[in-house]
Amino acid sequence: MKREETLRVQIGSVGIGGDCPVSVESMGRIHPSRIENCLTEIGAAACAGSEIFRIAVPDNTALSGLIEVKKKTPLPLIADIHFRPDIALQAARAGIDGIRINPGTFKDSGKYDQLIDIMHDNQQVLRLGANTGSLPPHHRQKERVKALFESITEALELPEKKGFRQIILSAKSTDIDETIQIYDWLAHSFPYPLHVGLTEAGEGTEGIVKSVIALGCILQKGLGNNIRVSLTSSDPVLESRVAVQILKSLGLRSKGIEVISCPTCARTKGDVVSFVREIKKEIASIHSPKPLKLAIMGCEVNGPGEAREADIGLAFGKSTALFFVRGKVVKTVQQQNALLELLDMLNSMIRKNA
Amino acid sequence: MKREETLRVQIGSVGIGGDCPVSVESMGRIHPSRIENCLTEIGAAACAGSEIFRIAVPDNTALSGLIEVKKKTPLPLIADIHFRPDIALQAARAGIDGIRINPGTFKDSGKYDQLIDIMHDNQQVLRLGANTGSLPPHHRQKERVKALFESITEALELPEKKGFRQIILSAKSTDIDETIQIYDWLAHSFPYPLHVGLTEAGEGTEGIVKSVIALGCILQKGLGNNIRVSLTSSDPVLESRVAVQILKSLGLRSKGIEVISCPTCARTKGDVVSFVREIKKEIASIHSPKPLKLAIMGCEVNGPGEAREADIGLAFGKSTALFFVRGKVVKTVQQQNALLELLDMLNSMIRKNA
Repeated sequence: MKREETLRVQIGSVGIGGDCPVSVESMGRIHPSRIENCLTEIGAAACAGSEIFRIAVPDNTALSGLIEVKKKTPLPLIADIHFRPDIALQAARAGIDGIRINPGTFKDSGKYDQLIDIMHDNQQVLRLGANTGSLPPHHRQKERVKALFESITEALELPEKKGFRQIILSAKSTDIDETIQIYDWLAHSFPYPLHVGLTEAGEGTEGIVKSVIALGCILQKGLGNNIRVSLTSSDPVLESRVAVQILKSLGLRSKGIEVISCPTCARTKGDVVSFVREIKKEIASIHSPKPLKLAIMGCEVNGPGEAREADIGLAFGKSTALFFVRGKVVKTVQQQNALLELLDMLNSMIRKNA
Repeated sequence: MKREETLRVQIGSVGIGGDCPVSVESMGRIHPSRIENCLTEIGAAACAGSEIFRIAVPDNTALSGLIEVKKKTPLPLIADIHFRPDIALQAARAGIDGIRINPGTFKDSGKYDQLIDIMHDNQQVLRLGANTGSLPPHHRQKERVKALFESITEALELPEKKGFRQIILSAKSTDIDETIQIYDWLAHSFPYPLHVGLTEAGEGTEGIVKSVIALGCILQKGLGNNIRVSLTSSDPVLESRVAVQILKSLGLRSKGIEVISCPTCARTKGDVVSFVREIKKEIASIHSPKPLKLAIMGCEVNGPGEAREADIGLAFGKSTALFFVRGKVVKTVQQQNALLELLDMLNSMIRKNA
């Protein structure tokens, strides 16, 4: 899939745009004044695959916390700031890697100019992030996609005049079609990398499916340089996992160890569901430099077929498990020994590949 | 989104293809000899949005069970049969609504002819379903998409010669790109409606994301008349929900009551996550003939904006919840009363809409 060309910016250690891989951002739930909890949250998001972490900074206590968090964070940070130009200026001066503002945040404050100058000097990244929920008042009466586009265009005037190019754009709607439309429009109007998300996607399966459809469609067109999945949940782990899985599914991130498994049916022999959960728990901590495919199949219909196509496959029989390695039957073991056997074979394959 | 034209077939009460809406199929996990458990499973799938139910019939006990299940099922049934032409013939004679066979199932049995005749007389639907895991041996050495296509073409010869047109086609791979390719090829080669799925998508978030990407891409092209999401799980409820949500997200099924909600962050006031879970539990049993949008927002940034766009919105304040109805602030209540208030407003809106 060809990616649309954009400028490249650098947020801490992570490049966005240009020929950098599409990266994953997630956002904290914890007020950054709770410094240790906030760092724990960042660590969990990083383990789940997030590469950039955004934190809302609604007040001065939050800013003081953020500055402490910045000293120990494993991920580059973006301060998310609304209503408070003064806090944005302080966050920029404090060297936070990136700052996200709403196009309306600096309206008439006279301080936008200062912010750009500080960020220019510090080589920080500014994300201009419009959102259907927080459009500036004078844009609210318009058709929403147009309003998002025009509020971004307006916010770009000053930085462009000053030659500041360390910019990322985003424009999020709760509506999938609007989201697809606005990113198309942005990509074909401006040279800046795009942060892509569907805002307020909601909770659970509903939120996941809506996000995957919207982000999948946009990424498939070659658009988008950084993504965030916005799920209503108490921590950023699930949204990070979903985002990573979107990238893997579209071939935009190495698949690592992929597990394919049958849905089970009246033919199933053995407890495929528990087995797959067990093996996924085990491989979460195993790193394979090359992509590997495991197939866990419950019967003789698709089982041997899929197992044959995988790097390591197993098809359950009545009380046994038949193992395949790249198409060849290698052994049959009792089902209760299958998990350990599979892990042994996997680890030895990774050692040989390395 | 324009749908590709196809023939129309009828499986029990459900039309597939033609101008029928895209329908959802799911598949049983329970051996159909456990008749009551099987019926409970079908009921749960139906409540979760499935409209057609497929059951694997590996042996004669399964067939006897299926015939009993058929007498009481709320959903049309498809018997999924491999290796056993004799069972397929009996299932057809017993009047099961549809039969799914692998292209290879009848190879050299001399009984394919009989099956077509019975199904023709009974106006039953035959699904020719190829799968990368169970390709007939003489197709296995080919590139997989080509093998899927050729095995379908081969299996179509006899029914086409006999003028039998009650056919649905499917060709599933575990690979997303292959799946998108093969459905494109089938849609542009044959007039029959398509059952679409990604086979062995796997478990949990990984399985959901892979399925949504593959099915989303295919449906977005206007292809596909019936879908199944194949998730490794112990019942068909989750896969039904995911399938329905895919259709809703693409505007292919009425959205009913849609809940948008923010992911929460350091700005959040009130427990949005629990509130959204509660409200979703409550509305699961409320039917709205017209689509309605609820917005549950945790703060003052996007909160009032999104809440304004929704039919009913609420934005949490420090200890209060601010209610909007289609853009107008209607009242402020204490957070502990917000759930009941929202349900009251929702029910009264549905009564007025009706």
